Amino acid sequence: MSSNKPLDRFLRVRRRTAALCEPLEREDYTLQSMPDASPALWHLAHTTWFFETFVVAPSGIAYERPPAVFRHLFNSYYNGVGDVYPRERRGLITRPTVSDVLEYRARIDEAVATLLASDADPAIGELVILGTHHEEQHQELLLTDLLHAWSFSPVRPRYTDRMRSMVTARPVAWLETDEAIATIGHRPEAGFAFDNEGPVHRVLHPAHAIADRLVTNGEFATFIADDGYRRPELWLSEGWATVQREQWAHPLYWRATEDGWRRFGLDGEHALDEGAPVTQLSYFEADAYARWAGARLPTEFEWEAHAARRWSDQDGRHCIEGSSGVPQPAGVDDPQWCGAAWEWTSSSYGAYPGYRPAEGALGEYNGKFMCNQYVLRGGSCVTSRDHVRATYRNFFPTDARWQFSGLRLCRDLR
Amino acid sequence: MSSNKPLDRFLRVRRRTAALCEPLEREDYTLQSMPDASPALWHLAHTTWFFETFVVAPSGIAYERPPAVFRHLFNSYYNGVGDVYPRERRGLITRPTVSDVLEYRARIDEAVATLLASDADPAIGELVILGTHHEEQHQELLLTDLLHAWSFSPVRPRYTDRMRSMVTARPVAWLETDEAIATIGHRPEAGFAFDNEGPVHRVLHPAHAIADRLVTNGEFATFIADDGYRRPELWLSEGWATVQREQWAHPLYWRATEDGWRRFGLDGEHALDEGAPVTQLSYFEADAYARWAGARLPTEFEWEAHAARRWSDQDGRHCIEGSSGVPQPAGVDDPQWCGAAWEWTSSSYGAYPGYRPAEGALGEYNGKFMCNQYVLRGGSCVTSRDHVRATYRNFFPTDARWQFSGLRLCRDLR
Amino acid sequence: MSSNKPLDRFLRVRRRTAALCEPLEREDYTLQSMPDASPALWHLAHTTWFFETFVVAPSGIAYERPPAVFRHLFNSYYNGVGDVYPRERRGLITRPTVSDVLEYRARIDEAVATLLASDADPAIGELVILGTHHEEQHQELLLTDLLHAWSFSPVRPRYTDRMRSMVTARPVAWLETDEAIATIGHRPEAGFAFDNEGPVHRVLHPAHAIADRLVTNGEFATFIADDGYRRPELWLSEGWATVQREQWAHPLYWRATEDGWRRFGLDGEHALDEGAPVTQLSYFEADAYARWAGARLPTEFEWEAHAARRWSDQDGRHCIEGSSGVPQPAGVDDPQWCGAAWEWTSSSYGAYPGYRPAEGALGEYNGKFMCNQYVLRGGSCVTSRDHVRATYRNFFPTDARWQFSGLRLCRDLR
Amino acid sequence: MSSNKPLDRFLRVRRRTAALCEPLEREDYTLQSMPDASPALWHLAHTTWFFETFVVAPSGIAYERPPAVFRHLFNSYYNGVGDVYPRERRGLITRPTVSDVLEYRARIDEAVATLLASDADPAIGELVILGTHHEEQHQELLLTDLLHAWSFSPVRPRYTDRMRSMVTARPVAWLETDEAIATIGHRPEAGFAFDNEGPVHRVLHPAHAIADRLVTNGEFATFIADDGYRRPELWLSEGWATVQREQWAHPLYWRATEDGWRRFGLDGEHALDEGAPVTQLSYFEADAYARWAGARLPTEFEWEAHAARRWSDQDGRHCIEGSSGVPQPAGVDDPQWCGAAWEWTSSSYGAYPGYRPAEGALGEYNGKFMCNQYVLRGGSCVTSRDHVRATYRNFFPTDARWQFSGLRLCRDLR
Repeated sequence: MSSNKPLDRFLRVRRRTAALCEPLEREDYTLQSMPDASPALWHLAHTTWFFETFVVAPSGIAYERPPAVFRHLFNSYYNGVGDVYPRERRGLITRPTVSDVLEYRARIDEAVATLLASDADPAIGELVILGTHHEEQHQELLLTDLLHAWSFSPVRPRYTDRMRSMVTARPVAWLETDEAIATIGHRPEAGFAFDNEGPVHRVLHPAHAIADRLVTNGEFATFIADDGYRRPELWLSEGWATVQREQWAHPLYWRATEDGWRRFGLDGEHALDEGAPVTQLSYFEADAYARWAGARLPTEFEWEAHAARRWSDQDGRHCIEGSSGVPQPAGVDDPQWCGAAWEWTSSSYGAYPGYRPAEGALGEYNGKFMCNQYVLRGGSCVTSRDHVRATYRNFFPTDARWQFSGLRLCRDLR
Repeated sequence: MSSNKPLDRFLRVRRRTAALCEPLEREDYTLQSMPDASPALWHLAHTTWFFETFVVAPSGIAYERPPAVFRHLFNSYYNGVGDVYPRERRGLITRPTVSDVLEYRARIDEAVATLLASDADPAIGELVILGTHHEEQHQELLLTDLLHAWSFSPVRPRYTDRMRSMVTARPVAWLETDEAIATIGHRPEAGFAFDNEGPVHRVLHPAHAIADRLVTNGEFATFIADDGYRRPELWLSEGWATVQREQWAHPLYWRATEDGWRRFGLDGEHALDEGAPVTQLSYFEADAYARWAGARLPTEFEWEAHAARRWSDQDGRHCIEGSSGVPQPAGVDDPQWCGAAWEWTSSSYGAYPGYRPAEGALGEYNGKFMCNQYVLRGGSCVTSRDHVRATYRNFFPTDARWQFSGLRLCRDLR
Repeated sequence: MSSNKPLDRFLRVRRRTAALCEPLEREDYTLQSMPDASPALWHLAHTTWFFETFVVAPSGIAYERPPAVFRHLFNSYYNGVGDVYPRERRGLITRPTVSDVLEYRARIDEAVATLLASDADPAIGELVILGTHHEEQHQELLLTDLLHAWSFSPVRPRYTDRMRSMVTARPVAWLETDEAIATIGHRPEAGFAFDNEGPVHRVLHPAHAIADRLVTNGEFATFIADDGYRRPELWLSEGWATVQREQWAHPLYWRATEDGWRRFGLDGEHALDEGAPVTQLSYFEADAYARWAGARLPTEFEWEAHAARRWSDQDGRHCIEGSSGVPQPAGVDDPQWCGAAWEWTSSSYGAYPGYRPAEGALGEYNGKFMCNQYVLRGGSCVTSRDHVRATYRNFFPTDARWQFSGLRLCRDLR
Repeated sequence: MSSNKPLDRFLRVRRRTAALCEPLEREDYTLQSMPDASPALWHLAHTTWFFETFVVAPSGIAYERPPAVFRHLFNSYYNGVGDVYPRERRGLITRPTVSDVLEYRARIDEAVATLLASDADPAIGELVILGTHHEEQHQELLLTDLLHAWSFSPVRPRYTDRMRSMVTARPVAWLETDEAIATIGHRPEAGFAFDNEGPVHRVLHPAHAIADRLVTNGEFATFIADDGYRRPELWLSEGWATVQREQWAHPLYWRATEDGWRRFGLDGEHALDEGAPVTQLSYFEADAYARWAGARLPTEFEWEAHAARRWSDQDGRHCIEGSSGVPQPAGVDDPQWCGAAWEWTSSSYGAYPGYRPAEGALGEYNGKFMCNQYVLRGGSCVTSRDHVRATYRNFFPTDARWQFSGLRLCRDLR
C-alpha cells in the first residue's frame, strides 16, 4: 500500500489529476455543459487554489504568486475568502490558458513540497491531507463533468477503452437485522475523514433487510418496460413533476434503438450491460424503482451499519487503480459493497449531533450544504479508492443524474 | 368539550369554514397570488369534492351530482382520481361562482348527513372524520393564502380586529435532556391522526437543551440589526442564494419605516409586537437565526419528546376558538408550546419506519410529498385547535414564508 | 346618428361600458389570465382614472377624491403621473371592490358633467373626447381579455347568444393599383383621431393587387390540412421558433374534435363557421398563411389607400350596435372592409414623419410603443363603431393572438 | 484593387479568416458567451460547411467528405438542409477539434479551387462569391463574439494593439434635403449584393436634415451625465423595461472609474476616446439618445439616399485592411460615412416591394428574419471593406448591444 505521509500522498494525488487529463484535447479543458458541472481547466486550477489559499499563503513562505485575479476566478464558494466568480461562467475562462494553469500547479506544488520537507507544523500536514482528499473529489467530478458535456456531442467521444464493468449480477440475498443501536460516524483515530462524517454518535435503526447487491441495468430495464416512467403512483410528487417537465423516460445516457438499449459512458456508447449496476439515476428514479419493487431505499445509517460489518478500516478499500488512472472495481472481495456505484439513501443530508464546522472559511466546506440534498454512500467506478469507506457521505440534490449513482433495496421487517 | 361523533364534528367543521369566509367580499374569493396559494372559492369546493369523492360517491347513495367538470376542477393532486386541473390556474375559476359552490356544499352536506344518520358502516364514519381534519387544514390555508394575496395590496385590507397576540415574552429557560430513546408517533388508540404520524417507533435522541419558548419578533429584529441578512456565514448556501436573488432583508410582511418595523397581518398593519413570536419565516431564515444565536433547530423527535411530556392527549389542546371563528391562543397553560406559531425543525419530512400509505387514491394524501420539505411542529394562531397535538407533522419547502412559521432554539449538550 | 357633443358622447360611452359588464358575475370582474390582459374591474377603474387625472384634477373643480391609492393602482403606464402598480398583479385588486369602483365612476362622471355643463374651455371638451375614445379602446379589451380568461375554463362560459357572424364568404376579387403617391393619415378637420394617425403625409406605394375580402376560417383550415403548422419554410424564423415552443397547431380558441373544428368565442363554443373571417391569429400565423397562399400582407399604407377610396368619413362606419351593447357587423355596404376583423399589415408600428407626441404625461399614450409591434387596420366585431376609420392604427406584438385579428391578402404587380 | 475573380477572391477571403484567428489561443476557439454569439471554431467550420453544402456537394465533384455529423453540427439555420444542431450548444463542440476543422477547411478549399479552375459554370462562380460574402459577415461576427466572451473575463484579454480610432470629432453639420423620391436598392449591374438589397424601387422620403457625422463617446457621456438612463420619458416603453430589468447605466463595455469612463475593446481596456463614435449601443439606447438630443434616427432610405450621393460604387470603399487583418478606418475621404460604426436606423427590417427569396434552402439566408429587427447601415471597424456599400442592410434585434453599433442624428424639416 502506498505511503500516506503528507508529501508522498500530495505528490501522488497531484500526479494522478494530471494523468486523468491525458486523453483530453486542449479544446476539451474549457467545456461546461451546465452550471453544476465545471471545466477541467477550472478543476485543475481550483484544486491548486485550495492549496494556495489554505496552506501556502497562510504559511508566510515566499512563492511566486499568480495574478491576483486567480483568487477570484478559482474560488468555488468560499465567501469567507472573497468575492466568488460566477459558477455558470467557468466555461468562459480561457485566460489563464491550460498552460498557464499547469504552470500555476507546478509553482504551488513546489511551495507545498518545500513546506512539507522542512520541520513542518503537523497542522500543515493535516491541511495538505485535507487538500488531497478535496482534490480526489474533484478528480471524480472532472470525469463526470466531462462525460456530461460529451453526452451532448453527436460525435460521442471516448475517454478510455477500459471501463467495462467487472461486476456481474447474482441473485439477491437479503441481509436481515433486528432493531439495534449502531455507532455511526468516523472515529478520529481511524485516519482522515471529512468533518461531516462526525462526531461519532449512536443511532437506533429499525429491524430491516437489506439487499446484498446493487440494482442492475437489466432490472431497471424491466421497470421501464413495466411503464415505470408513466405511472404517477410510483413517484414522489416532485419526482413526477420532474419526469413530465423533463420528459424523462430512461436513465441519463441511455438511448433506445431497434436493437435495444444502448448506453453512453467514458468508454463510448455500447449495448447495455444488463448485469452491471444501473447508474446515472436521480434520487427520484431510485426512489420510484424501490417503490415499484415493493421495497424502499435504506437510510444512510442502515447502510453504514451493514458496510462497517463487511470491512474494517484497514482492508476496506476494494478498488484498484487502472494504469489509465481511472479506478476499476477490483473484483476481489465484494465490489457490490464499494466502488461499483454511489447508492442513494433515503437520508436527507444533515448535521450529526454535535457537529461543528471548522473556524474560518474552511468551515464552508461541508456544513452550508446540509439542506435539500440526499446522502449517497459507497463509491463509484470513478471514485478514488481512498474515498471508499463506511463513513463517507456523498450528497446531491434529488434531480441530479450525472453522477455514477444507483441504488440498493431495503425492506422493513415488522 | 364538543362532541366528536362523526356527524356532529362534520357539521361543526363545515359551519366553521363558512364562518371563516364572512369577512370576505365576493371579489376576494377568487384571489390567487402564487401557484402555492389557492383561492377561497377553491378551498370551499375542494374540501367538498373530498367528501364527495371519498365518501358520498363510493357509497352508492342517490344525490344530486354536480357538473362533471367539478371532478376535474377541484381535484388538488390525486392522480388516481383523474386528470388534475392546473394548480396555478385556480384563480381563473369564476364559474362555478361562489353561489354555485355554496350550493354544492349544501348538497354534499345533506348527502353526508344522510349517510351518517343511518346505520352507517363505521368505515364511513372514519372517512368523514378524515375529511373533517382535511378541511381544517384547508381552513388554515384559506387564511394564510388570503393574507398572502392581500399583502400585495397597497390598501392593506383587514380580515379581523381581534388577532393581537396574547403571548408575551419571558426570559428563556433551557430544558435539558440526556441521550434517550423516545417513543415517537401516534398511538392508534389515541384518536384521529394522519397516516404520516405513524407507525409508533423508537428514536434515540442525543443529549440536548431546548428553549421553553419561541423566538420573538424583538429578538429577530436584533438579528436584522446585527446584519443577519448580509452575512453569508450565517446561512445555508441555498438560503444565501435565495436571500440575494429575492432581496430578502426581513421576514415576510415586515416593513421598515421611520418609526421602526411595522408588520402586516390578518388584523391589518401595526407596529411590530416585540414580545410576540416571530412568524412568516422560511426554513432558511429560521436556520440562520439559530446559527447566529449559537444554537440550532431541534429535530422533530426532540420536539415531540418534549411536547409529549407537557401534555396528554386529552388536555393537550391549548387554543380556544374566538367568536369570529379564528382560533386564538388561550393564554392558559402555556401557549409557548402550542398555537402560537408553527416551529421549523431540522428534520427533513420522511416516512417513519414501516410507514405504508393507504391503498388507492387516498394513499396520495401524504406520502408522495416526503422529499425536499422540512417538518414543522406545534400549531399557529390560525390552526384548528384539533390539530394541535404532539405528533402532528406539518411540512413545507425551505423557502416557504407565507405560513405562521417561526422557531424555537435547541442546543447540543456534550 | 348620435350627437358628438362632448357631454352627450361622454355619457353615452360611459353607459356602454357599464352595459358591457352586465353578463358578468361579480367573480368575473377580477379575472386576469396573463400580464397582457386586464380584469374588468381594472378597466372600469382605469378609464375613470384617465378622466380624473387628465380632466377633473387639473381643472381645479371641487370633487370627492377617491383614496390616494387609486392614483397608483389604476395608472396603466404613465410614468409621468407617478409610480405604476405592476401590470401582472391587476388581478389581485379586489379592494376597492366592484361596488367601490362603480361609485368612483359615478363621482367622476358627475364632476366631468359639471365641467362640461358650464362654459367649458374647449380644451376640456377635447380632453373629454380623447378620454371617450380611450374608453372605447378599453371596451374592446375588456371583452377580449375576458374571453381569454374564460378560454382556460373547461366550463366554457358564454357571454352572449348573439355573436354569430353576418359575414359570408364570396369568391375573392383582386383590386389592382399602379404605383402611386397616396396621402396618408388623419386630416385635422375630419374629427377626432389619435396622435399616431398624423401628421398627414405622402407615401409612395408600389403597384399591387389587394383582395376584396378577408381570409376565412375555411381557407385557414385548408392551410392547416396542408401541414401549414409543420412546414418551417412557410414561417418567419421567430414565428417557427414560437410554433415549436408553444406547440401551436391551429388558431387560438380552435379545438379539433371527431366532428371537425370547433371554436370558442363570446357566444360559447360552436362548430367552425367556415365562411366567417378567421380571427385570433398572431402576426406570425397571418404571415405564414399569406406565404403559403403565394401572397403577402399589405402594408398599412396600401390598406389605407384602398379603404379611403371605399368610404368617406361621414358614412364610413359600417357597424351597428346590438342591443346587448356588442357591436355587430352591419351587413350593409361591405363589412369585409370594416368591423369583421382587425387585419395584420406588414408595417412595423412607427412614427409618421413629423410626429410629435403631446407634452406631458399624455405624450406617453402612443409614441413610446413604436417598436417591435405591427400595425393592424380595420376593426373587429367588438370594436366600437367610432373606431372604424381609414386612418386608425391598432398595433400588437407579433405573437399576440387573443385579439379578433385576421388578414387580407395582397400581391405585387410587376 | 484586388481581383474579384471568384477564385482569387475565394482564396483571399479564406486566408483572411485564418489570419483573424492568429491571436487566439486554442482554448479561445470554443468560447460561447450567449446563444446569439458563436465560437471561432464554429465560424471556421460553418463558413466551410456553406461552401460544401451549396457549391461542392451539388457539383458532383469527387472530394474527401467530412464525417456525416458535420452536416448537422455546422448548419446554422437552414431547415431545408436538415436537422439543425442547437445554437446555444455550439460552445460544446470540441470534437472535431480546431485541427480537424482546419483540415476540413483545407479539403473544401481544394475542392472549390478545382471547381473554379476548370471551365466552371458561371453559376458556380456566383455561388462562390455569395459564399465569400457570407464568410466576411462571419469574420465580423467572429471578432464581435470573441470580444463579448472576453468581456466577462476579469483578465481583459487583448486581441490587438492597433485598434485605436482614427476618427476625430468635428462640429456637426446638418445636410438638408427636400421631400423627394429616391431610388433605393442594389442595381444588378453594380456587382454583388445580398438578395435583401433589392429589388430596386422608389421611395418617397420627407424633407429632413441629417448629421454629417456619428454621435461620439463624449456626447454619449453627456447624455449619461444628464440622467439619460434614469428618465423614462426618453425611452421607448420596451426600452425602459429593458433598462430596468438589465440595470443598464452605460453602453456595453464601458466601466465607470474614479478617473472617468474606461472602455473595453479588441485592444483591451482604455480611457474613453471622447472623439470616437460611440458603439456597442442597442437600438433602445440609440433611440433614447436621439430623443434626448431633440432629433430622431434616420430611416434606412434617408440614409441610403445620402450615402449614395457621397460615393459611387467604384470608389465607395473607405476602409483599408490593416496588416493584422483587421480593417481600420482609412482616414481618407470621410470615415464618418463608412467603416466607423454601424448606424441604427428607425426602419424595421422588411422586404422591399417585389422581393422574392431564392429557391431552395438558400432562400432561408435573409428573408425569414424580416421581423422584429431593425436595419443598421454603414459598417464598422471590423467590417470587411467589401461590405461597406450604400445599399448594404445589416439588422439586429432592438436589445442587441454587442456589435459595433452607434448612430447618426436626423431631423424633420417642416
